[in-house]
Amino acid sequence: MPAIRIVLCRPSHPGNIGAAARAMKTMGLADLRLVAPTRAPLPKDEWMATHGADVLAAARTHATLVEALADCAAAFALTARPREWSPQVLDVRAAAQNAAAFAEPVAFVFGSEDAGLTNEELFACQTLVHIPADPANSSLNLAQAVQVVCYELRMAQGAVVPAMRAEKAATVADREGLYAHLEEAARASGFMAPGSKLRERWRRLFSRVPDLEREEVNILRGLLKSLLKK
Amino acid sequence: MPAIRIVLCRPSHPGNIGAAARAMKTMGLADLRLVAPTRAPLPKDEWMATHGADVLAAARTHATLVEALADCAAAFALTARPREWSPQVLDVRAAAQNAAAFAEPVAFVFGSEDAGLTNEELFACQTLVHIPADPANSSLNLAQAVQVVCYELRMAQGAVVPAMRAEKAATVADREGLYAHLEEAARASGFMAPGSKLRERWRRLFSRVPDLEREEVNILRGLLKSLLKK
Repeated sequence: MPAIRIVLCRPSHPGNIGAAARAMKTMGLADLRLVAPTRAPLPKDEWMATHGADVLAAARTHATLVEALADCAAAFALTARPREWSPQVLDVRAAAQNAAAFAEPVAFVFGSEDAGLTNEELFACQTLVHIPADPANSSLNLAQAVQVVCYELRMAQGAVVPAMRAEKAATVADREGLYAHLEEAARASGFMAPGSKLRERWRRLFSRVPDLEREEVNILRGLLKSLLKK
Repeated sequence: MPAIRIVLCRPSHPGNIGAAARAMKTMGLADLRLVAPTRAPLPKDEWMATHGADVLAAARTHATLVEALADCAAAFALTARPREWSPQVLDVRAAAQNAAAFAEPVAFVFGSEDAGLTNEELFACQTLVHIPADPANSSLNLAQAVQVVCYELRMAQGAVVPAMRAEKAATVADREGLYAHLEEAARASGFMAPGSKLRERWRRLFSRVPDLEREEVNILRGLLKSLLKK
């Protein structure tokens, strides 16, 4: 994975820089740049940064976008409304996968909350990035757009769901033991009528639990055993 | 696509309900429910809702999560820390794809900013949903988590990048005409040395523009023509 840089051009609303820093932090990113911010980070930013306060504190400021991108091999510009003359436009998922293929630093560039990116800034980037949205309401809050981008960048690294406690999986033999036990219980209790489809029904039910655990089979069989004893 | 419901359990921080409403609105969702909110929506919520003010205004309040989910066929609970005993855990992408397969209403359930979901609330849901994040900083802001979920739900509907102006694509014949013209120019100007690899080089360059447009070919050939005339 390359070094990923998040660049905010002329952010203005209090809290947004901090919320963007927090969004980056949750996805393991740390390189935040501000281009010509209209104000220094405010207390509101610090409050919104929460655990991303270190990202906010380390943010560097640049006079122009070109300066902020100088050492980057690729720059991706977020825009809700791709222009006619624009370079290639990718959705954010494809852009993140594309970015992940670089060895050199790569930047994702966000415009100001009100005016977006200028034409000059768009031209400093090689790719426009679109976050699919309702065309009638396509304007995401700045920090929320940063969150979606950072999330997709993490997904592009092959993020996985953290492993759960390693439960012993039920084997086919465990399952067959359960089915036989169910059938025994159904016959013994008179619940299984001639021609009954019960056997198919519970196979169908448990087939939809592909990660069935041995302990779960044991619990069900324990219950059956206890019922049959009575 | 089923009707998707976003359920916030005991939201407390000012602005979060509004920002969640805005996040929903950007992705075309409208059914917001609040479970036992610790406060009525505040002006800060309305301000943060921006274009999602109608979603916020239409939000219904319920005393319990089970009541909010009563008519849903499936409920997905967001959690940063899947519990040992938890039902199946999916990442948010898989969960959104799973949810899209239902015909009946489906809910995504979010806990309070500070305490998350109670055990009882988790058990009212059939699936836990994990947003991949840096394990050391996995706590997304509530509205940002809502944004990522709504984004993935939209992607699961097969969201596409809006079509650009339909430019006429360059045909193979257009490309060959360009290559021939470049070679003519290179020979005429003495730039093409014997054994030169130039022909391969410009083919390689333009092969990396798979969506080359006829007009772009015409512009380049116009320039060559103009240079050759001099």
